[in-house]
This record gives sequence, structure tokens and C-alpha cells, in this order.
Amino acid sequence: MSFACETLAQDLPSAKGSDPQIMGWMRGTPPDSSKLVLYNDLSFYRFPQSRWAFSHFRELMPTKRVWRGAGPAFPFTYQLASDIGAVSFTPMDGGPSMTWEEMLAATYADAALVLHRGKVVYERYFGASSAHSPHISFSMTKSYYGTVAAMLLEEGLLHEDKLVGEYLPELVDSGFGDATVRQILDMTTAIEYSEDYADPNAHVFDFARAGGIFPKGDYTGPEGFYGYVATLSKEGEHGEAFSYRSVNTEVLGWLIARVTGENAVEVLQDRIWSRLGAEEDAYILIDSLGTGWAAGGLNATLRDHGRFGEMIRRGGQWNGQLVVAGTIVQDIQRGGNPDKFAKAGYVTLPGASYRNQWWVHHNPNGAFSARGVHGQTIYIDPTAEMVIVRLASHPLAANANYDDVSLPAYQAIADFLSNP
Amino acid sequence: MSFACETLAQDLPSAKGSDPQIMGWMRGTPPDSSKLVLYNDLSFYRFPQSRWAFSHFRELMPTKRVWRGAGPAFPFTYQLASDIGAVSFTPMDGGPSMTWEEMLAATYADAALVLHRGKVVYERYFGASSAHSPHISFSMTKSYYGTVAAMLLEEGLLHEDKLVGEYLPELVDSGFGDATVRQILDMTTAIEYSEDYADPNAHVFDFARAGGIFPKGDYTGPEGFYGYVATLSKEGEHGEAFSYRSVNTEVLGWLIARVTGENAVEVLQDRIWSRLGAEEDAYILIDSLGTGWAAGGLNATLRDHGRFGEMIRRGGQWNGQLVVAGTIVQDIQRGGNPDKFAKAGYVTLPGASYRNQWWVHHNPNGAFSARGVHGQTIYIDPTAEMVIVRLASHPLAANANYDDVSLPAYQAIADFLSNP
Repeated sequence: MSFACETLAQDLPSAKGSDPQIMGWMRGTPPDSSKLVLYNDLSFYRFPQSRWAFSHFRELMPTKRVWRGAGPAFPFTYQLASDIGAVSFTPMDGGPSMTWEEMLAATYADAALVLHRGKVVYERYFGASSAHSPHISFSMTKSYYGTVAAMLLEEGLLHEDKLVGEYLPELVDSGFGDATVRQILDMTTAIEYSEDYADPNAHVFDFARAGGIFPKGDYTGPEGFYGYVATLSKEGEHGEAFSYRSVNTEVLGWLIARVTGENAVEVLQDRIWSRLGAEEDAYILIDSLGTGWAAGGLNATLRDHGRFGEMIRRGGQWNGQLVVAGTIVQDIQRGGNPDKFAKAGYVTLPGASYRNQWWVHHNPNGAFSARGVHGQTIYIDPTAEMVIVRLASHPLAANANYDDVSLPAYQAIADFLSNP
Repeated sequence: MSFACETLAQDLPSAKGSDPQIMGWMRGTPPDSSKLVLYNDLSFYRFPQSRWAFSHFRELMPTKRVWRGAGPAFPFTYQLASDIGAVSFTPMDGGPSMTWEEMLAATYADAALVLHRGKVVYERYFGASSAHSPHISFSMTKSYYGTVAAMLLEEGLLHEDKLVGEYLPELVDSGFGDATVRQILDMTTAIEYSEDYADPNAHVFDFARAGGIFPKGDYTGPEGFYGYVATLSKEGEHGEAFSYRSVNTEVLGWLIARVTGENAVEVLQDRIWSRLGAEEDAYILIDSLGTGWAAGGLNATLRDHGRFGEMIRRGGQWNGQLVVAGTIVQDIQRGGNPDKFAKAGYVTLPGASYRNQWWVHHNPNGAFSARGVHGQTIYIDPTAEMVIVRLASHPLAANANYDDVSLPAYQAIADFLSNP
């Protein structure tokens, strides 16, 4: 398995018991020392302080705005369905049946949105989250960057068969040099890199230190995301197996920047974010060189993620314009290679694949999703004409820890909406 | 003199010669090392890099959003007067006559707005600034906080004759303990503190290190703005003379927080910013404890400062509501005590005073202003029914260095608009 299944210590408080509003993090004039959530001591990444921090990243480190543009917000129509909270399902392990709202509590949800045929049928906020406050997306960010890259492929600025080293001479001697753009997009590169959040020596933490997401500590490697990925080596052969490595997305961000000549965050802003009719500016965590954290740094509100998801569900047509070509969405929906994906051994995602930085479930409904650690999801079900967004602050990083209740819940909502 | 008159080195490039867009700061994928503007090495505060940094503070350090609210932006009416750029005036020293636009270039203006009877008659952006990008306000922030504090006085939450120590036991033993709220508001406290930006050993730099505005370096004092002000001692008697000390405004922010029980940034957001019909979110630089830098940390766009200035000019009535009581604006316009002010020896501000964190010019037009180092101004002229906002990145901090051209230019525009 790629994700180590972490163990939830028995004495960790529940979602209710760790409610950041009740705990009063950073409240007080000034806050008591027992209420501080700090960058320097990494307390922001420790549960339960993380439940506050996930809605307050900009208060902890430098960020770059992803501007919503000057136009009006795209207004959602509301058709709230009061019975969604009680929709029940059976977890993957066959355990006792659970309701949608029990699932949200069990997964430490901070916010949840269900769109059906573009209308809001369910919307709730918990903990430190609110309708207008951006929340960290973690790896959902990848699906935004993957969509941008797919647009550049469509335009011919990027070519999927070309090698990374042809665009980025800085990476010729790294493990990425002879990988194709397609391998980067679908994460089938073979790079020596550990993304196991449960292992304190995993590469992912040095990566975070290079980018300033974590304090430097005794890290002495190159500064910045780009500098860090250039240090990585190959391990095996590219193209043979899906191998989830966040660093691929940093390379993708670098490719986007190189072929456009712009900061990749501005490309995301100009081509997608400012065209969604978003209600709020988003923002992204940046390294000291101004590079956005492509693999995980986007912060946005629940409803704005919903706008992005709904734009994708509608084949890119949104807010009076074609934001993304329909062929790009179709390509994502068709998915990547399930055989290569299967080699990674994701037990909660049987038969799935990964395409253009999206997870493709290959289930009867044709669902695909953006996913981020600690429970972030944009789940798009074309058959049920449904988009679900869940933002969360689960104490455990890997979604594999709670897919067993999350994925059946999404299917149950899809069934409920399809056969009310 | 309170401000040391700094000397502009002869070889410093002009506004045009230091244009941050042309210099290409932080451009490149990634930027070349010669194009970096960094927090850690303080290059962001060095001219000419500062010309880029003043429009990009959030990319350098943690910030807190000051939300614009969910409502529509208050739309300005445009009645651009093409001849404003050529309006000429004689500098204070009697030197050769200069035009408005020559003054803007000479003062390294990043943006300039002139409102007449609420209509935009002049609007320009230079360098790294643009209509939708927030720019550092520096001490103009004080006038926002002073206005909020005046609202709390009006509501009876604060009392001008009460002592700081009665509200903030943490400051009883500091130099501020026996100062009144009024003395804090009008900066007539007597505190041992140097604000001379030309002196690298001035207290103001340790203050910046405590708050994280500057890197810590070898600073080992208390963390955060509040902790720092508690270390300061009295020097003389409170209430005798105007003595510009930014730390008064931090105490004011702390008073606002204490009597409302809220983070002072949220008080500013709820009572003023979110009621202006601002186009953009503002943001404020914060210390690691989440305290906004009351003396100088606000970042906002040119037009949004214009909305604030125009709201004040209209006696607080704005955007369909009474944002600030008219009596508060009248009290500011009446000003503080010019005799106490005169003791500070501001040669460019003869006859002026300071009230509720606003500069009151006591000129024939009854002008008053918010002012920040490096050339920030909101200049309100009630007689000419005019509001001017200038954002700038002058290499020298103290406005005293360029008041000689700025203040006559404002008067010339007032005369021009009054007698076109």
C-alpha cells in the first residue's frame, strides 16, 4: 500500500470534543499561551490545533492571492433537502449502518456541500469553518493544476510525449529528466520519494521544509519547491505503475510556469479561478521564491470549490463561458490506466485510476474526484448529476483511513438524489 | 524634530529608474537570484526592492484578512479631469514650480486618486501597483484604528479619561500604565522610544522584530506587539507634548481588543471595512499571536482607501448607512492641541495638531489626513469637497522629506477643483 494506514489513538477526542471554536484557539486579547497555534513549533500541524489552522493558514505563513476577479459572484440556487442528513449507508467493512451526518462527524468534517443538477441541496459548516472563510485544500490543489496543464496540452503549449528535461533543463539530471509530461500528469514516474505522513523521516517533510510549509529546522537543502524536486533521483522505470508522489505536481507547476512564462499561480488565477464567479479570493501557500505549493497549497471556500466542481461536471461550460474545453473533462472522466493504478495497492479504491491529477473511480456512476489529506474532497458523479465537497480536519492524513465511510456515503447520496 | 530628515543619496535611481515592473523583481520561473525580494535578508525593506514589496507584503509574511463582506462594491462615478496632471504649484521652499504629475514621480507614487464631491476625477497606477492590488498603508493604519476607538468612546465602551492600566493590567507597570486613553489617542504620552527610521538602533526596529515584521535577528525580547509595548518605560510626563510614537497605537489596538473581547482586526473589519462597499478584501500584517500591526500593518487598494476617506468626508454617512457618527468626524476635524503639537517641531506642519490618530492641518480649508511613512496619504479637504489618496514607495521613510512638494500639491488640486 502506498499510504500507511495510520492508527487513530483511542484517546483522541471526537469532532465534537475537538471543536476548535469551543477550544478557543487563538482567542483572547492576547490569547493565553495554552491557546496558541504557532508556525515555529509546528503546533499548527498537530491535532487538535490543526482543526483551527486548516481554516487560518494565511495567518501562519506567506501566501499569494488567487484573485476572484472583479465580476459578480455566480449565484447558486438553493433547494435544500432536509432529509439528506439522515441518508444512511453501510461502511465498506460491512459494519453498522451510518447516516450522512454521522459520517461527517466521524471524519471531522469542517464543511460539506451537496450540489444536485447545480442546485445546493445540502450545506453545513462546523468548527472553525464558515461560508466565507477559505480552508486548506491540500492535494485537491493538484486537480486544479492538472486541469490547467490539460488546458495547455489542448493549446499545444505542452506536449504529453515530450520529456520534462526538454522544458526544464534544471531537471535534466534529476529523476524527472526523462519522464514524459503525461507520466507527470498521471503520476506514473518512478521517483525515490516517500509520502508516508505517518513516518517522520518521509521525504514529504523535507519537501515541506524546503517550501516553508514547515519551519526549516535542520533542513539545509535547496530553498523552494523547485530547488527541492531537482534533488530527487529515479527509482525504477517511469511509466510502469501509478505511484503517488506530490513532487510530480511541483514539476507540473514548474512546466506550467515555464511554457507560459508566468507564475503558475497567476495562470491558475487567470484561466480558472477568476472565471468561476467565485465569491471569495482563494490563496495559495508559497515558498520564499514566490512559487505556489502546487501539490497542496490552495485555500478556498466550500462554495467556491463547488463552483469549480460544478463547472467540471458541466463539461467546462460555466458562468456564461467555456472555462475548460469539454474534451478535457471527457479525457479526465475516461481516466488513466487502472492496471498501473492497481500496482499501488489502494484497498479502498479498487478498479480506480488517476488522470490529469484527478482520481477516477471507474464505478457504475462514472465518478471522479479531487482528494486531499485529512479528508478534503470534491466528488463529481456525472450519472447522479451531483457534486459533493467536503472540507475536513481529520487527525489522520491519508484518506485511506476513512474512505470506508466516505465513499459509500457519497454513493448513498447519489442514490438518494437519483431516486428520492 | 521628531523625524530625522534623512538624506537621499545622490545616486539613488528616480521613480522611473526604479520601476519595479521594469526591474522584474520576483519574475522568472523561478526568479533569478538577482531578482529576489526576501523576508529573511530584509531585502524587502531595502530600496528599490521595497517598491515591489510594498504591493506584495502578504507574500512575505503572515497576514490576517480584513473581509470586505458579501455585499456589492460601492460604485464610484467617474468624471476624469484630464488637466489635473498639469496642475502646478510652488514647493514650500519656494523652489521652481512643479506639476501634480511631476510631484507624483518625485515622491515615487505607486498610485494616486483624487475624489471631488465623491466622483473620481483622477486615478493613476504606477510601478507594481494596480487597481485591485492592496498596498501597504503603514501609519495610515493608525487613523483606521483611531476611528474605531473613537466609535468605542462614543458607545461608552472606552472612556477618554480612564487610565490604560485600568483596562490593561498587563501595562500597569509599563510607561503606559498611568496614561489616559485620550493621551494614547492623541499621542501625548511620554514614552522612552525612538521612531527615527534613519537610526538602525531605534526602538522601532526591535518593535518590528517583536511583531515579526522584520526577521527576529538577535532580538530576544518578548514575542508580539503587546509583549513589546509592555517593556517600555516612561520618559517625562504624559499629556504635555505631542510625541509621535507608533507604540501608542498598539496600546490602542489592545484597548480595542480588551473592551470588545474581540481581536482588534475583527473589530475594524466588522465596524468599518465590511461596511464601506470595498472592492477588495484588505489585510493586515500580524504577529505570531494573531495581533494585527495597528500602527502600520493595513494593506488595501487605492480606491478602497478612497471609500474610507470619502465616508469620513461625508461625516460618516456612506453606502446607505451611518458607518461613523458625525460627531466623531467633527471631533477629528476640530483637531487636537496645536500648542502641544508645536513642541514636536514638525517644520513641514506648522500650526497642525493630532487627534484620534489623524493629522489635522488647521489650514484655511480645514484639511486633515492619514499619513504613513514612505509617502502614504489620505488627505481630506472638507472645503474643496476633495479626498486625495496617494500610495508610494519613496526611498525615505519620513514624510517630512517630501511634504514640501506633497502638501502644496494637495492645496493646488483643491484650488483647481474649487475654481476650475
